[in-house]
Amino acid sequence: MKWDEIDQQPCSIARALSEIGDRWTLLLLREAFLRTRRFADFAERTGAARNLVSDRLEKLVAAGILERRRYQERPPRDEYRLTPKGLDLHPVIMALVHWGDRWHDDGRGAPVEHVHRTCGHVMHAEPSCSACGTRIDPREVTVRAGPGLRGLPDADRIGSA
Amino acid sequence: MKWDEIDQQPCSIARALSEIGDRWTLLLLREAFLRTRRFADFAERTGAARNLVSDRLEKLVAAGILERRRYQERPPRDEYRLTPKGLDLHPVIMALVHWGDRWHDDGRGAPVEHVHRTCGHVMHAEPSCSACGTRIDPREVTVRAGPGLRGLPDADRIGSA
Repeated sequence: MKWDEIDQQPCSIARALSEIGDRWTLLLLREAFLRTRRFADFAERTGAARNLVSDRLEKLVAAGILERRRYQERPPRDEYRLTPKGLDLHPVIMALVHWGDRWHDDGRGAPVEHVHRTCGHVMHAEPSCSACGTRIDPREVTVRAGPGLRGLPDADRIGSA
Repeated sequence: MKWDEIDQQPCSIARALSEIGDRWTLLLLREAFLRTRRFADFAERTGAARNLVSDRLEKLVAAGILERRRYQERPPRDEYRLTPKGLDLHPVIMALVHWGDRWHDDGRGAPVEHVHRTCGHVMHAEPSCSACGTRIDPREVTVRAGPGLRGLPDADRIGSA
């Protein structure tokens, strides 16, 4: 299977990765969440080559994750902002940051701290159950085939309800 | 900047992505969380070419995310299991699945459902604040330079405490 066939898989991760699974794309999204909006800033802050930044920003716009807004007419200049679909990636980014902080902080501590304005504390995201609200222990989570897999070969492997 | 310099950035996401930012790697990790352990199963279930599976599994072992255990001597056969560092990626995987479910379910519903054994319900992960426990609204999260960024040029941009 080639990567451009991957979004055909009945798997939400495969489909997600077909849009955001590129490493530079995820760094550009990191920047978008740090409120970077302009092409030159994306390029400078990620260290990526300009043609690469241009390509990935276009793809994010095409995927509906960023939207382009003109902020200056002469010469024409656009900025890129997260759409609701893009903002909804916040838990993915937070989870990546926290994992990186835990396992790759170089002994120096977290490069960036998150502060929860609601309570005023430095924090990280902890996954909690959408049904009962308690903190999730990975060993307490099982999977089963959902409606999107019904009738497909993978359903047997995943196990059904 | 080239990708293999990316883990030099004082950014937890960049460092995380240097280990898991490859798309096939994330699909292999999806499989590991579905309890896939053997080489042939990883290859079949991701649809990736065998040389690619081999390369990515080696890298995950080198990164301490998977560990290799021999389960048969003649002929020698190994299986791959998540280490604590690997298990700690559960929130990343859960967040990716949920985003894919929300934005890419194809109208058919989630391919895979997660069931929380603790409460018995189908669920997804919701990020909650590690300090106060309330559900996180992304607009309520601000960032500031942490100890790992002190004295570096990026610290000014992120803003300090």
